[in-house]
Amino acid sequence: MIHELAAFERAPGEVAFDRGQVGAHLFGPSPAVHALMATTEEKEKAVAGMALWYPTYSTWVGRPGVWLEDLFIRPSHRRRGLARELLAVLAERSPGRVEWAVLDWNADAIAFYDRLGAVTVDGWTRYRWVPTRPE
Amino acid sequence: MIHELAAFERAPGEVAFDRGQVGAHLFGPSPAVHALMATTEEKEKAVAGMALWYPTYSTWVGRPGVWLEDLFIRPSHRRRGLARELLAVLAERSPGRVEWAVLDWNADAIAFYDRLGAVTVDGWTRYRWVPTRPE
Repeated sequence: MIHELAAFERAPGEVAFDRGQVGAHLFGPSPAVHALMATTEEKEKAVAGMALWYPTYSTWVGRPGVWLEDLFIRPSHRRRGLARELLAVLAERSPGRVEWAVLDWNADAIAFYDRLGAVTVDGWTRYRWVPTRPE
Repeated sequence: MIHELAAFERAPGEVAFDRGQVGAHLFGPSPAVHALMATTEEKEKAVAGMALWYPTYSTWVGRPGVWLEDLFIRPSHRRRGLARELLAVLAERSPGRVEWAVLDWNADAIAFYDRLGAVTVDGWTRYRWVPTRPE
């Protein structure tokens, strides 16, 4: 499903994870990331969507929060409130903020986040640094 | 020092943490946030700066990273390479990306990040949601 998300985000070539490693990061003794799955109600349960998240911390509000790294609902399961249900579960796990980033062209997602009552964080620019490491 | 940072960021009133709680979040059995301190070389060591960070995860690169939540060097200790030293330590702790956000008006910091080789993450908008919870 991570590959489906990357295809939707128009960057399928940027996915470079190792399936076994991600498994360890998700289900190992000290998980680096957590997955919430939305499943269908039918007898043969199918995965309809997922939310991948990890805990954050804000020193200003002085409490932990949640960063929603990936949110994906499979196309055939959209418009049924699944994303809202996943976000409601995340809200229960965060005593503070729930935050995420959205691709600027993703109008459907932006409309959903606005309806939810989330607000944009303006005035900040995100930086990414991939340090060069000795081999 | 969190209050000094908030004053520098022109938002002193937005700091609402509880000193005891932050202590537990930093030094408790399962820390939510980690602090790196830069100290002076003199006999009476003084705290010159700090980097507060927590681990992140990117499903696309399939590995953990570091989010730098707060970076602050006290004014009298700037221009001595302390921020670069703190970032070098963070780089050692991240097998993947090191990321942070900078206030758009903070030209000194932006110039430093550009010299470091960090790049801006464009095309994404950050959202924040503070769910209403039953009292």
